[in-house]
This record gives sequence, C-alpha cells and structure tokens, in this order.
Amino acid sequence: MAPGKTNMTIGTSVVMSTTENWLDEVKWNSDGLVPAIAQDASSGRVLMMAWMNRESLALTAKTGKAVYWSRSRGQLWKKGESSGHEQQVKQIQLDCDGDTVLLSVDQAGGIACHTGRESCFFRTLETPDWGISEAVLKSPEHIYEPK
Amino acid sequence: MAPGKTNMTIGTSVVMSTTENWLDEVKWNSDGLVPAIAQDASSGRVLMMAWMNRESLALTAKTGKAVYWSRSRGQLWKKGESSGHEQQVKQIQLDCDGDTVLLSVDQAGGIACHTGRESCFFRTLETPDWGISEAVLKSPEHIYEPK
Repeated sequence: MAPGKTNMTIGTSVVMSTTENWLDEVKWNSDGLVPAIAQDASSGRVLMMAWMNRESLALTAKTGKAVYWSRSRGQLWKKGESSGHEQQVKQIQLDCDGDTVLLSVDQAGGIACHTGRESCFFRTLETPDWGISEAVLKSPEHIYEPK
Repeated sequence: MAPGKTNMTIGTSVVMSTTENWLDEVKWNSDGLVPAIAQDASSGRVLMMAWMNRESLALTAKTGKAVYWSRSRGQLWKKGESSGHEQQVKQIQLDCDGDTVLLSVDQAGGIACHTGRESCFFRTLETPDWGISEAVLKSPEHIYEPK
C-alpha cells in the first residue's frame, strides 16, 4: 500500500479509503478536526455545530448521513444513532479558507438538539442574560428511553 | 476594583467591563475563543464562521456590530473595517453546551467573504471534488482598494 494510503476500519469491516483529494483541501486543526455546521435544508435554521475528523467527513459524504466526531467520547458519533434523529445530508460546503464545513440536512423528527429542541441554538441574548427562546418538542427522557 | 473586575481598554478609551454574567456562560476553549457563525437575517444564508474572544463578543453585544478575533493577526477584527462590509447584529444566540455562538446579521453590501462573494461557503462538494457554486459579486481588488 502506498504511503499515506490507508483503509479505515470501523469495527472489523473495511469501509473506505480516506485519501480522496477533496479531503486534503480541508484545513484540519491541530487535533485533526474541523467544525461542521448543520443547517436545516427546508427551514434554513442553523441546527447545531459539531466537529468532524477526516474519517467522519468521509463517512458523511459516502453514506449521506451526518457523522461527527465526539470530542468528549473520543469516537465517531453517528448523529441519531441513539435518538433516531438522523441527519440526511443534501449538500456539503467548504468555506473560503477551508477550515469550516457547512452541511445542508433533512433533520429526522425535526429535532437536532439533545434537549429535545429543533435547534441547539435555543438561548438568545436578552441583555443582561440569555433567555430560553425555544420550547422542548420532546423531552430527553422520551428521546433516549430504552427501546 | 473587585478581583476579576477589569475595565477593558482599546486604544486609550475605557469601553466596558467584560465581567457580565452572560459572558461567563460561554464555554471558551483553551485559547479563550468560541466559534461564531454569522447567518444572514433575511436570506437565512450562513455567511461565515469566525472566532471571538470574550472582548470581541462583549463588543459585538455592546455596539451591535460584529467584532471577531483574528487568530492569524492576533487582534480584534471589526468586520468590515477595511472592506465596508460590516455586519449589523440583530440577534446573538448560544447553543446547548455553550461553546458556539450564532449571530443573525444584516450584511452590508451583501458580501461577507473576502473573495467578494455573499457567503464564505461557496465551495460545494461535487464528488470527487469541490466545485465553485457561487459567483464573485465584487472583485477583492475593488473591495480593498486604497480609499
């Protein structure tokens, strides 16, 4: 195998090569991550911002479903895996300096946030404090209840 | 002056205290920064993502104009200072875990990107490469020409 060419494995199955040129145009930070913004394809609402590593961005492009990198858990985070609130990715964009990704997504269940709200941006500055500007659509205990 | 209370100075003028509680709810990263997404208030387009430190977010809230922190220049970056493409901030939001800010802005000139485009997200993934999906509205040499 040529230097730099690796086949990524998840579990035991070889899923892809992540040596595609388009991935090289992303400016990964010193932790190998890039911020990824998810925007609702129909409403235009900014739903969340999370991080991706090379493998998660490659998987997102390949599968058409948003896969992030969980910095707290140190592992791939298939959005919606436990909540069912997957994101079908319609479009992937890169900014001028290549260090931020923008996803246009169809949000399953209309809920992106783990608090049960449509968007993670539910706090609005009402000086001198943040106000809660959005209702919970489904309580987290019902989102994450054992199935 | 109480511990932790400081009056920030820019040039020679004292502009504000940045010890407001709402600023304490932001989870600044190890560099003291938070990513800030700017979204066009009327079109809903995501225009750019840049970084803010505590002072720039405080200034943004106080002045109603977007002030970022330029990581490359290591200084405050009043958006539009050289280009004229200021951002009038209509709303400031914070996400669920407090580590990303979302601004709703009126973009002066309809151009947020230094390349002369409306949005910095003008590259769209058309596997196996990024395609340019947006025209330049004004060439950078005309944006930044000496006045």
